[in-house]
Amino acid sequence: MKVAGKHYRSLWADESLGVVHIIDQSRLPHVFETATIASAEAMAEAIRGMRVRGAPLIGVAAAYGIALAVSRDPSDESISRASAMLRTTRPTAVNLAWAIARMRERLACVAASGRLLAAWNEAQAIADEDVALNEAIGRHGLAILEREHEALKRPVNILTHCNAGWIATVDWGTVTAPIFMAHDRGIPVHVWVDETRPRNQGLLTSWELTGHGVPHTLVADNAGGHLMQRGLVDLVMVGADRVSRRGDVCNKIGTYLKAVAARDNDVPFYAAVPTPTIDWGIEDAMREIPIEERPEDELRIVRGLDAEGRASEVLIAPRTTRVANPAFDVTPARFVTAIITEKGVVRANERELLALWPRQRESKAYLT
Amino acid sequence: MKVAGKHYRSLWADESLGVVHIIDQSRLPHVFETATIASAEAMAEAIRGMRVRGAPLIGVAAAYGIALAVSRDPSDESISRASAMLRTTRPTAVNLAWAIARMRERLACVAASGRLLAAWNEAQAIADEDVALNEAIGRHGLAILEREHEALKRPVNILTHCNAGWIATVDWGTVTAPIFMAHDRGIPVHVWVDETRPRNQGLLTSWELTGHGVPHTLVADNAGGHLMQRGLVDLVMVGADRVSRRGDVCNKIGTYLKAVAARDNDVPFYAAVPTPTIDWGIEDAMREIPIEERPEDELRIVRGLDAEGRASEVLIAPRTTRVANPAFDVTPARFVTAIITEKGVVRANERELLALWPRQRESKAYLT
Repeated sequence: MKVAGKHYRSLWADESLGVVHIIDQSRLPHVFETATIASAEAMAEAIRGMRVRGAPLIGVAAAYGIALAVSRDPSDESISRASAMLRTTRPTAVNLAWAIARMRERLACVAASGRLLAAWNEAQAIADEDVALNEAIGRHGLAILEREHEALKRPVNILTHCNAGWIATVDWGTVTAPIFMAHDRGIPVHVWVDETRPRNQGLLTSWELTGHGVPHTLVADNAGGHLMQRGLVDLVMVGADRVSRRGDVCNKIGTYLKAVAARDNDVPFYAAVPTPTIDWGIEDAMREIPIEERPEDELRIVRGLDAEGRASEVLIAPRTTRVANPAFDVTPARFVTAIITEKGVVRANERELLALWPRQRESKAYLT
Repeated sequence: MKVAGKHYRSLWADESLGVVHIIDQSRLPHVFETATIASAEAMAEAIRGMRVRGAPLIGVAAAYGIALAVSRDPSDESISRASAMLRTTRPTAVNLAWAIARMRERLACVAASGRLLAAWNEAQAIADEDVALNEAIGRHGLAILEREHEALKRPVNILTHCNAGWIATVDWGTVTAPIFMAHDRGIPVHVWVDETRPRNQGLLTSWELTGHGVPHTLVADNAGGHLMQRGLVDLVMVGADRVSRRGDVCNKIGTYLKAVAARDNDVPFYAAVPTPTIDWGIEDAMREIPIEERPEDELRIVRGLDAEGRASEVLIAPRTTRVANPAFDVTPARFVTAIITEKGVVRANERELLALWPRQRESKAYLT
C-alpha cells in the first residue's frame, strides 16, 4: 500500500540484480526505511531481528531466502543449508516451514541449471498468492462497508484492535484490505485504532493508515466501550490468529472485551480471516486452544523515542512487580456477527464455516 | 497504610513544629519520599505539582494549607490570601473548595488569638473524618470478601481498575480499604491490577498493595475479560468519580468494558463509593454527565525510568497521530451488583440509593 504517496509492497524482488528489498519494520512507526537483502544469511538475520515480521510475510521472506541461496549456489547442499538456517529463525511460525517446504518441493526435480529461474518464480508466486488472498478478503469486506455507508450516509466508523495490516502480509493486510479499498473508492471511513497493550501494535496500524491517507484516531484500549455507548462505532473489525470450526475467534488479548461491548451496544463485530486460519480440528476454542503467556517485561518496558528522537525505552513498573501477560483471548462465536474470508462472508457457525472446507489440493496451499 | 513495614498516612501534621509531612507522590511508584511542608505557599505548590493528589487528599491538604497560613499570620487578610492561592491550584477538584470554605467558616468567628489552635484542630478533624469514612467503607466491603472466602475456601481474586487507593485519601482508600482489612485479618486475597492506560494509575495501586504486603498481579487492561473467562476473577471492585441516583457508575475509562465482561461471566461487580460521591441531581449518567477529554500527550508519552534508573519518558506515537483521550466512562446500573458505601451496601437502584440520602446537616459535610 502507500507510504508517503508511493505504493510499496512490504517485500519485493529485483531479479536482475538478484536482491530482495524489504521495509525495515524494526524502527516503525517512527522511522521508515527500506533495506536490500542480498543473501540467504541476510534474510535469516532480517527475520530473526523482526525487520520483517507477521506470519504471512515471514513465509514469503523465507521463500526469497531460498531463491537468494540458489542464486549463489544452486546445489542440493546449498538449498538444504539455507532451509535449515531459515527454518530456525522464528521456530513457531507455521508459514515459515510451509514456504520453505514448498520451495524445496518445487526445486527438487529441477536440474541445477534451471533452479535459478524456478526459485525466483516460485517465491514470486507465493508472494502473489498472498496478495491475491488478502485482496479477495478486501473485496468481500468492502461490500460490508459499502452497505454501511449507504445506510448511514456519513463516514463509517470502524474500531480495530492490534495490527491485521498490510505490513504483516505482502500487501493489503486482512482487516486493512477492505478499509483501503473503501478509502480508494471514495467511501468515507474513519478508523478507531486501539493502542493494543502491551506491545502497542496499534501504532503499526496507525502508521499504515497514515501512509495510505485513511482518517483514523488512536485510542487507549480502555476507550472502545465508551465510544460504542456514544454511537461513535459503526462496526468492529479484527483479525484472528486461529478460528475454531464453529466460529470462535482467537485473537490478540482484549479482543473479547470489545466483542462483549459491541453486543451490548448492537454494534456488528467482524473477523477478517483467510480460510487457512480456520483450524478445522478445533471446535471449542475456549477449551482447546492454549493461550500463550508472554514475557513479563513486555508489560513493564515501553519503547519509543527519547527527547532527542532516539529509540529508547522506559521501565514503567518495578522489576519486582508480578505481571501476567496472556497474549490472546477467545471471543466465543455467539459474539461474532460474521467472518470475512477470501471465499466470502459467512456467519460464525459450523454449518456456514464448513462450506469453506478446502478441497484437498488447496488444503496445504496456504497456512497462516 | 504500610510502606516497607511502617504505617503511614499520606499526610500528617506536626503541630509542635508547625509543619505538615506528605508522601511525595510525584515519583511513585519508583521512589518513595516524604516531604515537609512549612507554608501555605509550599502546600499550594505541592498540590499544583501533584506531589499530593486524589480528590479527598487534596481537600485535606488545602485545609492544612490554611492552618499553615494562620501559623504565620492569623489575620483575615492572611486567611483570604491563602484561600485564594490554594483554591486555584486544581480548579476542578470540589473537595478543595469545600475544605477551604469549611476552614474559613470555622475561623471566621474565632478571635485571632484563638485561630492557631482552631485551624490545626479543624484540619485534623477533616483528615480524621476522611479516614473514618474510608474505614467504614472498608468494614462493609470486608463482609463481602469474608462471605466470598467462606464460599470459595481459597484466596479471593479481586480485579480492580485505576487507583481508588489509600494515597488518594488520607488512609485506607475506598476499594483498597476492604482489601487491606481482609489481608490484615488473614483472609487470603489476590488482586488483579489493571495497568489503566493512559495514565497508568494501576502502578500506584500496585505500589500500595506491595507496601502492605497484599498479593497482586499487574495486567494490561486488555487481560481482564480473558481472566474472567478462565474463572480467575471472583469479583470486580472499582471506585467512582460520580454515581447517579439510580446507580450508574462514572469511573475511569475502561471500567465499563470490565463490567460487561463481568456480566457475561457471572462475576459480581462492585463500586466502593463514599455517599457524597452520589450525585442526587443526576438520574441518567450516560446522558447527563459530560465526559472530560484529556490531553492527547497522555496517550503519546509514557513515563518511567531509563536504563540508568532516572525518571524519563518516551514518545510512543508520532506527534502527528490524532488521538482521542476520553478520561471516564459510564457503567449503567444494570451491570452493577452493589454499591459499597460508608453507610452500608446497597443495590444500584434509585429506591435503595435514596435510603442513603443525607440529612441536611450532613449534606455539605463531605464532597469528593
